[in-house]
Amino acid sequence: MSASIPSPLPHIASLHAYTPGLQPAGAGWVKLNTNESPYPPSPSVAEAVMRELGSGPTAGASLRLYPNPTSAALRETIATHHKTECPSLTAANVCVGNGSDDILNLLVRAYCSAAAPLAFTAPSYSLYPVLVAIENGRCEAIPFTRDMTLPVEKIAASAAPIVFLTSPNAPTGVGFTNADIERILARYRGLLVVDEAYALFARENAAPLLTRHPNLAIVRTLSKSHALAGIRVGYALAHPEVIGALDRVRDSYNVSRLSQAAAIAALNDDAYYHDPASGIIAKIKRTRDRWQNVWRARGWFTYPSQANFIFTEPKNARGETGAAVAKAAYDYLYAHKVLVRYFAGHPLTESFLRISVGTDDEMAVLDNTLQAWHKNA
Amino acid sequence: MSASIPSPLPHIASLHAYTPGLQPAGAGWVKLNTNESPYPPSPSVAEAVMRELGSGPTAGASLRLYPNPTSAALRETIATHHKTECPSLTAANVCVGNGSDDILNLLVRAYCSAAAPLAFTAPSYSLYPVLVAIENGRCEAIPFTRDMTLPVEKIAASAAPIVFLTSPNAPTGVGFTNADIERILARYRGLLVVDEAYALFARENAAPLLTRHPNLAIVRTLSKSHALAGIRVGYALAHPEVIGALDRVRDSYNVSRLSQAAAIAALNDDAYYHDPASGIIAKIKRTRDRWQNVWRARGWFTYPSQANFIFTEPKNARGETGAAVAKAAYDYLYAHKVLVRYFAGHPLTESFLRISVGTDDEMAVLDNTLQAWHKNA
Repeated sequence: MSASIPSPLPHIASLHAYTPGLQPAGAGWVKLNTNESPYPPSPSVAEAVMRELGSGPTAGASLRLYPNPTSAALRETIATHHKTECPSLTAANVCVGNGSDDILNLLVRAYCSAAAPLAFTAPSYSLYPVLVAIENGRCEAIPFTRDMTLPVEKIAASAAPIVFLTSPNAPTGVGFTNADIERILARYRGLLVVDEAYALFARENAAPLLTRHPNLAIVRTLSKSHALAGIRVGYALAHPEVIGALDRVRDSYNVSRLSQAAAIAALNDDAYYHDPASGIIAKIKRTRDRWQNVWRARGWFTYPSQANFIFTEPKNARGETGAAVAKAAYDYLYAHKVLVRYFAGHPLTESFLRISVGTDDEMAVLDNTLQAWHKNA
Repeated sequence: MSASIPSPLPHIASLHAYTPGLQPAGAGWVKLNTNESPYPPSPSVAEAVMRELGSGPTAGASLRLYPNPTSAALRETIATHHKTECPSLTAANVCVGNGSDDILNLLVRAYCSAAAPLAFTAPSYSLYPVLVAIENGRCEAIPFTRDMTLPVEKIAASAAPIVFLTSPNAPTGVGFTNADIERILARYRGLLVVDEAYALFARENAAPLLTRHPNLAIVRTLSKSHALAGIRVGYALAHPEVIGALDRVRDSYNVSRLSQAAAIAALNDDAYYHDPASGIIAKIKRTRDRWQNVWRARGWFTYPSQANFIFTEPKNARGETGAAVAKAAYDYLYAHKVLVRYFAGHPLTESFLRISVGTDDEMAVLDNTLQAWHKNA
């Protein structure tokens, strides 16, 4: 007689897993649903990967060896990269993850449990409660209101030992000021994690605050601003003791050789990403600002975005908004092979669409399709 | 006044992290310490990575997109790859990890807690108790004796809901038979995880048992047999419900685009790896068998290895063995830039060296250095 199938822990069996954005198979989609960059990464990335591979009959030979277990060269590059914002930063302030989700996971595992809740503003990145649920931990949601003002006092007064604050926030795109973040840090005694996945599209970021605040951790990713979602590299900037805690939980070889090489190359090509005229970050910001103005002028409520996406509340031809209207717009776009993101189930998100900023052509297709929906719905 | 540095959870603060083998910087080392392949991966791996990158002015463009979140094509390839051993296997039986350490981590998080201990034979892979400690879980070590006979009855009688069995075992290299594994499965009702990191160097593997035993999970890696430690790909084979539990804990985008492409290419090049004459696995086995015979003939106790490393008990010139002798041999090798692995602190490992099988040249340098130590010590 064979055994039955063993059950996992009860809290895993009942877990509602994170739902990533659709990754459609096949061509023809306008994909504006997962905040990927519409532009390719720096050409130096492919060059660095090919250099790591080598060429000729032994191409790929270095892949037989484990990667550097502490991403040492990449951590040095990251520290140098942030030197102007935070001169005291060294590689000891950096932990590299297999995407910033890996870093968020390490933070939850190191600081959160059933007895030690994780607080986060809501709505924000929907992965947070899933990571806490995997640990059978406790969440404390600090609600936003529709105006998306940062609930500074409530966060500062939280008894949770760790708080996640997404800035710019997802899915709204609203950014928070360093002045507000310092008002929190003036009182809050736990670890304040500012998830800055979208910070390079914002007016400000919290890195300059690191020197003064040993209870601040910043999480970054190369997925969005550096057009490298495919290589899975993110990182934490924090006090070396916080980094030490993450390193205890981190897998020894969490970042592949090719990803380390690719990330170093990207971070070293400032002009490609950061040039105010030709840099891809500036291009995305210009496209974003143009389209959020178009939709606002059309009478659609649209949060001021400091990210690479736009959160807008579509109106149908009768001037109605709401969950049914937004879902209808989403479905119409989907039927016409335009993918955006729709977040049901929360009163502050369910009447909106989250639209990743694409190329000018992609945005034109999106808007034509939205206008066709508006006319036909 | 600035805040103090927040402490992680007490069990994380006191955690003794896993120590990976040294990754020396600089050239000139004979590196036989982390069971990497001495041969490069299949040339098709570099070709597949370059194909994924693309060429010309848009090289690297695909990296702006997230990888397939379920490693769908790779899981199909893996299922096909195991069809001859286990005809019923489909992609639903496969979970792909960022290295097999990721898979082990998912298994611990899904099945082990303070109330649900993880049992494992000891000594074995030293990561297991670290993964359990990160979860503040409980371990149950089932001891080997010096003859390394599998403690079948003790494992079968374990009340732990999950057991890790490394076969071939690390660091001894001793392999266990499917007959013994089925004797365990005949009685044990929890999830038996056979960690087959080294199975392709062994006489037998447990994949054919999967069809009959829904409480068996097998863990594999491409790091050793497929010479791809640098890309971080491992996987689990198990009942779809077990895979479902792992997927709930797994990060959505845990394997990069380049790693998925590389792994598919490697698994599709059977001849390069598995040809009985020219395949690199057969070459490594021949080198292994030659050298373990040499050291046995020299009077050094050496376990019969079914892995890509040899666990041998060095004797000094006075014919002595023991922890001090093995440590002296390790230090002498290290001083002469030959890296092997030494495991202090356990009576069954501390008088041994674990030597990864290298090229013929590397093994000759190693043995010359060992002989010089023997003469000079």
